[in-house]
Amino acid sequence: MNPVRIITISREFGSGGRTVGREVAERLGVPCYDKELVAKIARESGLAEEFIKENGEYAESANAFLFNWALAAGAGGGSLPVSDRLYVIQHNLIRDLAEKEPCVIVGRCADYILRERSDCMNVFLHADMQFRIDRILRQYGEAPEKPEKFLLDRDAKRRTYYRHYTGRQWGVVQNYHLTLNTAFLGIERCVDMVLEAARTH
Amino acid sequence: MNPVRIITISREFGSGGRTVGREVAERLGVPCYDKELVAKIARESGLAEEFIKENGEYAESANAFLFNWALAAGAGGGSLPVSDRLYVIQHNLIRDLAEKEPCVIVGRCADYILRERSDCMNVFLHADMQFRIDRILRQYGEAPEKPEKFLLDRDAKRRTYYRHYTGRQWGVVQNYHLTLNTAFLGIERCVDMVLEAARTH
Repeated sequence: MNPVRIITISREFGSGGRTVGREVAERLGVPCYDKELVAKIARESGLAEEFIKENGEYAESANAFLFNWALAAGAGGGSLPVSDRLYVIQHNLIRDLAEKEPCVIVGRCADYILRERSDCMNVFLHADMQFRIDRILRQYGEAPEKPEKFLLDRDAKRRTYYRHYTGRQWGVVQNYHLTLNTAFLGIERCVDMVLEAARTH
Repeated sequence: MNPVRIITISREFGSGGRTVGREVAERLGVPCYDKELVAKIARESGLAEEFIKENGEYAESANAFLFNWALAAGAGGGSLPVSDRLYVIQHNLIRDLAEKEPCVIVGRCADYILRERSDCMNVFLHADMQFRIDRILRQYGEAPEKPEKFLLDRDAKRRTYYRHYTGRQWGVVQNYHLTLNTAFLGIERCVDMVLEAARTH
């Protein structure tokens, strides 16, 4: 078994994925790519950060096969819709980051993009609705009008995005080495458990 | 958060679920219900242990709604097919066990049956195909003729059984507080991590 160099964190919106990713990275002394990834993609693509945030993990409808055919055929350029070009840029950037140095990567299908690496550990974090609502309230200061609907909508768009670009179903146990309910376990314990799982075997 | 009294372990065939369950129970000093459950069901139902093993977790086809209507309507008796009666007996036995004392329960939809308890932690264990093949070879001494087909078939029947009686999809992250890839993490570390997760919050 290879030592773990890369940890990918997939997560339900509001479950604390970013916080866990950041603390794990800090304790390992490696970079955590989340917002930083958005900034890097913006520099590389010329796209606005807001556009990347909204279109780099969320999608309204799915047609994975067409896109993957295009990717396999080497269509990385101007002929693709802008959301697909964004995926290609993210895809290449995530591969480069993983090659360069140990790191934690939050979201953006990194588990799928790095699926052929044997030094990559994939984590999924989720939580009960009330925990997530309380968390986004604390984090953003004000609630969306219908917080439950907002969260379910975010999950649905992440699910659609993931399916669109990977052909896989989001949140299926077999795609992850470790999944944790952050509401049940608490954020601090989740950080400890991710570190324990990543410890050299 | 209530202290964890009950740990349910769902698992892919050959992933080491029974071993993890047994060691966790031993370290907690509580009973582990796996084979013992089969024996109890046999005593209660008069059915043969072999029949219970084959029909208490595996099903060929699914029709959850019909069965759940029958259950909701209080049909616990002789009018149900024998496989459904077996489920009702397992269902009641698992509820009674959970009520009586802290324990570990392996398989048999216990996560679903105990879903309304707040002192219950649900774990799912899975592993890569090669790990599972090696494990059943070591455990049973001889291989089924096509071990991969054998394992996929067992998984499919557990999935069907679970869907039939719970209306839920088997192996979906949100149904478990913790899921672990035993091949990646190793059995011993999985035992430690389940215990760590069950520690009073």
